[in-house]
Amino acid sequence: MRIYNFSAGPSMLPLPVLEKVQKGLLNYNDTGMSVMEMSHRSKPYEAINAEAEILLRELMGIPKDYDVIFIQGGASTQFEAIPLNMCKNKTADYVVTGVFAEKAAKEAVKFTDAKVIANSKDKAFTYIPEIKKGMINKNADYLHICYNNTIVGTKFASIPDSGSVPLVADFSSCILSETTDVSKFGVIYAGAQKNIAPAGVTIVIAKKGLSDNPSPACPTMLQWKTQIEQSSLYNTPPGFSTYVALEVFKWLKSIGGVKAIEKINKDKAKMLYDFIDNSKFYNNKVEKKNRSIMNVPFVSPSEELDNKFVSEAIKNGLIALKGHRLVGGMRASIYNAMPVDGIKKLIEFMKDFEKNNK
Amino acid sequence: MRIYNFSAGPSMLPLPVLEKVQKGLLNYNDTGMSVMEMSHRSKPYEAINAEAEILLRELMGIPKDYDVIFIQGGASTQFEAIPLNMCKNKTADYVVTGVFAEKAAKEAVKFTDAKVIANSKDKAFTYIPEIKKGMINKNADYLHICYNNTIVGTKFASIPDSGSVPLVADFSSCILSETTDVSKFGVIYAGAQKNIAPAGVTIVIAKKGLSDNPSPACPTMLQWKTQIEQSSLYNTPPGFSTYVALEVFKWLKSIGGVKAIEKINKDKAKMLYDFIDNSKFYNNKVEKKNRSIMNVPFVSPSEELDNKFVSEAIKNGLIALKGHRLVGGMRASIYNAMPVDGIKKLIEFMKDFEKNNK
Repeated sequence: MRIYNFSAGPSMLPLPVLEKVQKGLLNYNDTGMSVMEMSHRSKPYEAINAEAEILLRELMGIPKDYDVIFIQGGASTQFEAIPLNMCKNKTADYVVTGVFAEKAAKEAVKFTDAKVIANSKDKAFTYIPEIKKGMINKNADYLHICYNNTIVGTKFASIPDSGSVPLVADFSSCILSETTDVSKFGVIYAGAQKNIAPAGVTIVIAKKGLSDNPSPACPTMLQWKTQIEQSSLYNTPPGFSTYVALEVFKWLKSIGGVKAIEKINKDKAKMLYDFIDNSKFYNNKVEKKNRSIMNVPFVSPSEELDNKFVSEAIKNGLIALKGHRLVGGMRASIYNAMPVDGIKKLIEFMKDFEKNNK
Repeated sequence: MRIYNFSAGPSMLPLPVLEKVQKGLLNYNDTGMSVMEMSHRSKPYEAINAEAEILLRELMGIPKDYDVIFIQGGASTQFEAIPLNMCKNKTADYVVTGVFAEKAAKEAVKFTDAKVIANSKDKAFTYIPEIKKGMINKNADYLHICYNNTIVGTKFASIPDSGSVPLVADFSSCILSETTDVSKFGVIYAGAQKNIAPAGVTIVIAKKGLSDNPSPACPTMLQWKTQIEQSSLYNTPPGFSTYVALEVFKWLKSIGGVKAIEKINKDKAKMLYDFIDNSKFYNNKVEKKNRSIMNVPFVSPSEELDNKFVSEAIKNGLIALKGHRLVGGMRASIYNAMPVDGIKKLIEFMKDFEKNNK
């Protein structure tokens, strides 16, 4: 039996994608081999690599003057690649809205004059601070934000206006979850393991010209232009992850693209938040306008009940609901691949649990 | 029909491993999910991660005073991580025996005083130069070699004695192909996509103490100690690749371990080299004592025939035999997962091709 997996990442993949991948695992498209065994210099792999980029561009509406690369290392590697690739004035502004946003700022300090211009730590990251244009250093090489914060479950209500300063955004936990105006960003980057593919591939979408002059201290393998110039094939790519990403893109297109999944995601999130808000037993602490539609943390009346909830949920086929250790409680990560039925089953369980533990 | 894939990497995986991975793709060990969907903080994944390390240690006989990590980025990232992690005296020696060995030396220049102490470019890398102790700078942080050279098909006949200078070796195309005395090395590193797993995971085996003081210029994600301290789980790991690696390790153990595969590999290579040596049609240009048992390049009497060979081979289910563009001709990469029958079929085809094209 397949279970409902509420993990913050790696997380569920669409069942039709998994079934298709399984079917072709020993013999992809009559090539006589698995994608896992395929030279990255072979025609079938080059087609996968090219099609993945084309479909992502189509799904997200990425303008032509942006490069798209599929690389290794995770978003954590990008925390350092960003200041090493965008280093004209060696100064950058950061908004700290959670643990990963903070990590990004801390790692950047090694390579640029990273200034935190806004921080929501005062309220345990339960809101997104307002970013006004005047707060941003006009000489900053970029303004870095984390658009959706996985741990606390917050999201920017709208794209901040950074004026002439390029906006760099970590989209790891919200990429492809709703329509986005890419042209308002300088760079969007994301680890694939939440909404796209198995861990191991990271996507960087960067406006042309922003990374032409990386720092001399930037390792070749961290330079975006290394991979941009070679269409992500400078060295052996994480081919199987990219292939699954392609299949996820195809699946997303087949169900109506980002617009369609946005509606489903908002419906899913609304069901869960409405239930929590109407309950006196469960509580979500995030400022309403900044609530994430991907990560929904909540608590019961006590830590003991939280622990009981998590372990009883597992017995009901609802797993990985334990909140991050920094926040406690529960967290339901409900990415694109989480079916509506998963939310319904979770809410049913929450009702039963409340009834039995009031 | 499964074909015989002679790709230099990514390359064939053992059929029993692929079949097992396929079977459990939607539901790994009754967890109700795919390994691709599994949180790296979950018990089943932690078990995969731990067992992969234990089995690799067992298979290679890795001494206790060595750390083992499974990371992202490929060997190419290690070309820069090495000088950034081992930088006490900021000087290092390199032996250039092929394109990747040369690339390693070139990338290192950015971060250390990298000196090439021996080079076999004079004979198009068709031999391994002798390394005498007196050639090595006693203050060098390490001596870097590429133990098996994929493109030209050479291999060190024995482990060079680098005295007190740690020997750092790229084992990407020979790891687990024959028994190795790990204690003679300071560091062994390898991309997984040839003998171990789908591309996306890289293994670093490093003697404790060698990377305690990375350069301040070393990005956190390139520091070995970052991952050593967290048992390879500092950030989201390339979990599916590591899982397939574990299944390959299990398979290798089940057939008798590295000693058993070494015999098979040597038999396979001997069959092919003997046939080439006894032929007046085919030729291998590598100095005999330095011949690789993993990568066997050869040429026919003309470039036209080489091209004809490669395309006719494809029609016979023998693919990816085209030599690297820098060398031309043909190359049969015959890693652990290439069955003896693949070699037999290749030799039969070579015989037929010779007969028809003499």
